[in-house]
Amino acid sequence: MPNGQENRQFHIAMRLSFDGTRYHGWQRQKNAVTVQETVETALFRALGEEITVQGCGRTDAGVHALDYCADFFTDCRIPPERLPFAVNAELPPDIAVKSAGYAAPDFNSVLSCVKKEYKYRIFLAKLRDPFETSRSLFYPYPLRLPQMREAARWICGTHDFAALRSVGTETKTTIRTVHWIELDEYESSLEIRVCANGFLYNMARAIAGTLLYVSEGKLAPEELPAILESEDRRRAGPTAPPQGLYMNRLWYGDEASGMPEI
Amino acid sequence: MPNGQENRQFHIAMRLSFDGTRYHGWQRQKNAVTVQETVETALFRALGEEITVQGCGRTDAGVHALDYCADFFTDCRIPPERLPFAVNAELPPDIAVKSAGYAAPDFNSVLSCVKKEYKYRIFLAKLRDPFETSRSLFYPYPLRLPQMREAARWICGTHDFAALRSVGTETKTTIRTVHWIELDEYESSLEIRVCANGFLYNMARAIAGTLLYVSEGKLAPEELPAILESEDRRRAGPTAPPQGLYMNRLWYGDEASGMPEI
Repeated sequence: MPNGQENRQFHIAMRLSFDGTRYHGWQRQKNAVTVQETVETALFRALGEEITVQGCGRTDAGVHALDYCADFFTDCRIPPERLPFAVNAELPPDIAVKSAGYAAPDFNSVLSCVKKEYKYRIFLAKLRDPFETSRSLFYPYPLRLPQMREAARWICGTHDFAALRSVGTETKTTIRTVHWIELDEYESSLEIRVCANGFLYNMARAIAGTLLYVSEGKLAPEELPAILESEDRRRAGPTAPPQGLYMNRLWYGDEASGMPEI
Repeated sequence: MPNGQENRQFHIAMRLSFDGTRYHGWQRQKNAVTVQETVETALFRALGEEITVQGCGRTDAGVHALDYCADFFTDCRIPPERLPFAVNAELPPDIAVKSAGYAAPDFNSVLSCVKKEYKYRIFLAKLRDPFETSRSLFYPYPLRLPQMREAARWICGTHDFAALRSVGTETKTTIRTVHWIELDEYESSLEIRVCANGFLYNMARAIAGTLLYVSEGKLAPEELPAILESEDRRRAGPTAPPQGLYMNRLWYGDEASGMPEI
């Protein structure tokens, strides 16, 4: 973001949450409404300044965030603890700022992020629920959790994840470290939490789709090492649909020590 | 519904749930999309027959249902247990049939209903939550639950509820019996459940608005008897907004003994 704004007086980081149903993802783009431009418009109205925000990562159309970080530079003297109220008044009801604080000068929402956790929600019932629409994957089939957990163990660790992402975004390397994959069982849903030092394009959804493929018996858990080694996207499971995916948790390093937690 | 359809061979009752955000309430009307007409269109597509459904009550625009009952007559021989799957395939994602079964010939979703429970959800937080939008009343203030509970006790029982309803729907009498008002506390929400033998137009929302008025100190709990006796709508609290209200539970008498429970 070397656009001159970094010479402004204050560097602010904020935590947001949003229902991504109506948006074509986070990142500003032509001819489509995104969360970034909606937040920038609200900041302009609240602070009276053209502001470019740096988000912690792209998200796909329809993907949600329970915790999302974005930082920006401003000359506006608004106390950060007032910022959520001022900005929320200008935001549509499906986006909210949850907290804000001063960030160190060299803080960067994407580069300073040391690990991220995505959550994938699967709604388990024979009949769909109107209140789950666009908030989970409706999955009216039994799950084989032991097999899913075994496959998840093979995915954890440092691997080349070329077989578990979509091509489309440039990246220096497709090697990432998955710290954990947890399967949390609830009364009528399963949540898959995946934590990694970084995610390739569609990686979280490819992992969810692959675990469902394993549950359906279309892949055996022990095939995962060979699939990863093949770097062949076609050998893994499909990319699970976006409405089940939530950016869930973010971890920042020391330079963000002043950052607000939500 | 004396439209000739009652001469058809089968009488079916079904339980539905719907997110009312997009709808102008249950009841069919000109120039506005309602749940009833949407369900009737889906039944026509699924069963190949023009069907008029009898719902268990009107709901306002934006009001939801976790349990709603509607019955209809048909010559279609679809087994009722298959009906939810067939009809849900034709319904938009914010309405779903949860169960269906044969009803007695004299069953009527509205007349056979012996009591109903509405739930009013209040989301309690300083900052709004994008995932609560249109599903609760955002209320960033402290609540005085003891006072609310005391007022609720005065509302329970058999009274003339003219002071706690909106004028607009004809009714023989404004006397109703409120069986209970329960205030359920959750981590970041309060749910007010009101059960009565019948509800006047806007009565559930007027009760919720009046309890909030009591919490805010604008009314004292012990004023409730005089307010009810006055039959003066202006003396009670305001009608709480629709997005917090859910038709929550229905009870039917013996003639509905074959009815499916959800």
